[in-house]
Amino acid sequence: MSPARPIARRMAHIQPFHVMDLLARARRLEAQGRDIVHLEIGEPDFQTPAPIVEAGIRALRAGHTHYTPATGLPALREAIARYYQDVLGADVAPERIVITPGASGALLLVMGILLNPGDQVVMTDPGYPCNRHFVRTFEGEAVSVPVGPETDYQLTAAHLARHWSERTVAAMVATPSNPTGTLADRALLSELLDFTQGRGGALIVDEIYQGLVYEGENGTAAALSEDLFVINSFSKFFGMTGWRLGWVVAPRDCVRELDKLAQNLFLAASTPAQHAALAAFTPACMEILEARREAFRARRDFLLPALRELGLKVPVTPRGAFYLYGDSTAFSEDSFALAERCLEVAGVAITPGLDFGDHLARSHVRFAYTRDLPVLEQAVARLRTFLR
Amino acid sequence: MSPARPIARRMAHIQPFHVMDLLARARRLEAQGRDIVHLEIGEPDFQTPAPIVEAGIRALRAGHTHYTPATGLPALREAIARYYQDVLGADVAPERIVITPGASGALLLVMGILLNPGDQVVMTDPGYPCNRHFVRTFEGEAVSVPVGPETDYQLTAAHLARHWSERTVAAMVATPSNPTGTLADRALLSELLDFTQGRGGALIVDEIYQGLVYEGENGTAAALSEDLFVINSFSKFFGMTGWRLGWVVAPRDCVRELDKLAQNLFLAASTPAQHAALAAFTPACMEILEARREAFRARRDFLLPALRELGLKVPVTPRGAFYLYGDSTAFSEDSFALAERCLEVAGVAITPGLDFGDHLARSHVRFAYTRDLPVLEQAVARLRTFLR
Ligand SMILES: Cc1ncc(COP(=O)(O)O)c(C=O)c1O
Ligand SMILES: Cc1ncc(COP(=O)(O)O)c(C=O)c1O
Repeated sequence: MSPARPIARRMAHIQPFHVMDLLARARRLEAQGRDIVHLEIGEPDFQTPAPIVEAGIRALRAGHTHYTPATGLPALREAIARYYQDVLGADVAPERIVITPGASGALLLVMGILLNPGDQVVMTDPGYPCNRHFVRTFEGEAVSVPVGPETDYQLTAAHLARHWSERTVAAMVATPSNPTGTLADRALLSELLDFTQGRGGALIVDEIYQGLVYEGENGTAAALSEDLFVINSFSKFFGMTGWRLGWVVAPRDCVRELDKLAQNLFLAASTPAQHAALAAFTPACMEILEARREAFRARRDFLLPALRELGLKVPVTPRGAFYLYGDSTAFSEDSFALAERCLEVAGVAITPGLDFGDHLARSHVRFAYTRDLPVLEQAVARLRTFLR
Repeated sequence: MSPARPIARRMAHIQPFHVMDLLARARRLEAQGRDIVHLEIGEPDFQTPAPIVEAGIRALRAGHTHYTPATGLPALREAIARYYQDVLGADVAPERIVITPGASGALLLVMGILLNPGDQVVMTDPGYPCNRHFVRTFEGEAVSVPVGPETDYQLTAAHLARHWSERTVAAMVATPSNPTGTLADRALLSELLDFTQGRGGALIVDEIYQGLVYEGENGTAAALSEDLFVINSFSKFFGMTGWRLGWVVAPRDCVRELDKLAQNLFLAASTPAQHAALAAFTPACMEILEARREAFRARRDFLLPALRELGLKVPVTPRGAFYLYGDSTAFSEDSFALAERCLEVAGVAITPGLDFGDHLARSHVRFAYTRDLPVLEQAVARLRTFLR
């Protein structure tokens, strides 16, 4: 073997998900016969709804296995546009919708067309960990703003005013957010949009948990203006994680740039997935998804008070997604060690705060209510014994 | 609307596929009732083989719709490793195989872990157009080396010696190559590997057309050494373009870096596609693929002499992939205009050289023999009339 190859500098800043190590450890315990409750992964237990699966099977039988255009199947772009119109009350032209391999692909494209080296993107800490790595990938700089319960863990215009610099080109929010499940309402989004427009920057709103809202608005930032980027996905609400399909609603003048970058980096998103997703908006499928939303709500309504009673501090009631994020210092000064012991001793896998940033990361953990109520009950029983 | 947003500088260097405009024009002609023969797209007419489709359907019915690990399903990594062992005669540990969304995803990851801003990658002109754009995406610099028939359109160590600089970190070849269909044989690959190792650089070998070889070696560069990157895909030989599934065989010390980047940029490749691909290596499927290889060979053996007879100069007989690349100056000084007229007048869509670089691009075109023999015969008849 030749001497170790020099790896690009960016890779020193791109971290793996810490939870992956925990997951590997959980798998080892399971191989030894231990029963583990998985509340660490941002992926619900539900299967893809049958109407989508059946549409996927029909697509395969019909031979829909060739490349689509880089921006996606025209019929799917139109179906999504109708969904914005009919369900979310936003007027979005199909031409502004670019289909991508997951929201991941959408984030990659948007950062790719916006960021020059050294450019800054303002985002929350805690937040979705990949965001800062997308920025780093393009030689940009993530400006992570510590947020807390006082602003529902969301960015405000005051934050932007404080953290915006000459080098800032975009601000990024998620509603509902990962890991906190809190929302950015219409008024807040307007305020953020006014600010970013005033500075000639871009606003990126990640709505991947859109649809999974238990109280408050289930709207879209796309209703506010054409001049922002809205990221979404079939992964979470639509139950299609493994299919790898998402989209971005872009300002008109950016679509050509996104298309060019997609042509070169991806060629296109999965064709069977795109055909399958056409069934996601049918009444039969929507009915299933609504029922699941209610199941998530019931899970939250069970787990949140139960964990609070055990001593987890959750100062803001999460209103969306499927996450509870709380202060775990009542149990341990180090949430990473806590997550490890929780797995080893109680057989409950949770995510340490470290995966969502640096701000108070060692004093927080995330629970994903991605398992059925009886399983959640069992998890709580185990935690009660463990934490006693 | 606010004033036009500043777009990242890289986007000025990332070009769309010119053939997309031709394709759009072809679709318009078809909408008007014209019959168009499509020889412009790097995608065969064959459907995904039935055993793969059936495995995909079984996977969907079995509920395999959740995220896989970022490096891919262990069973698929093992199946690919066995394929290297049994069919290609290379000893590749499954741990060195990272599953990606197409070869596109593999190229993105490899460039992402190797390139710092300003770093150079040496590649051929003509070559696969996305390569230089992947490099530009990470703020690197593609060094395009004009190649011609004297080296079978391949890079040689002499080229590397001439074009390697202080800033060069990698050289990239494709065998069989797009657009020329020529091979880099074992001796040449060894020579390139010696050179890059001697300079502490990486060798990236794109084998996406591996399997589609009509004479000469159907081997793999992975048999030479562990110390290089081999890119491959289920798109071409395996007939799975739209499924978006590929892989990279990496040096051991790079797998962790690829994994980290994949976790952040992709999360994972398509789950149904990964399960479906498990059937690609079964004897039933291999038999179909071998038959298709013979069909491609027959197409080449018809089209190449027919086009030569019409006056296209193809100085090196292509031995793989499904492309014929030739000098079209007997018909026109401008191959882009030629491709346009060829479409409009003869109803035959071909790809102008411009899509593969700058070197003699205006005097070359590419024909993709991705259509059945009778269709190719018709195309030749039309071209004969058109070029008369
Ligand atoms: C906030 C957020 N954005 C984007 C993603 C990416 O998801 P996908 O690529 O599956 O659409 C996730 C996944 O967990 C997420 O939590
Ligand atoms: C040489 C070469 N490499 C890579 C690719 C990417 O293909 P995919 O992402 O479908 O595997 C192509 C597609 O045409 C190609 O010709």
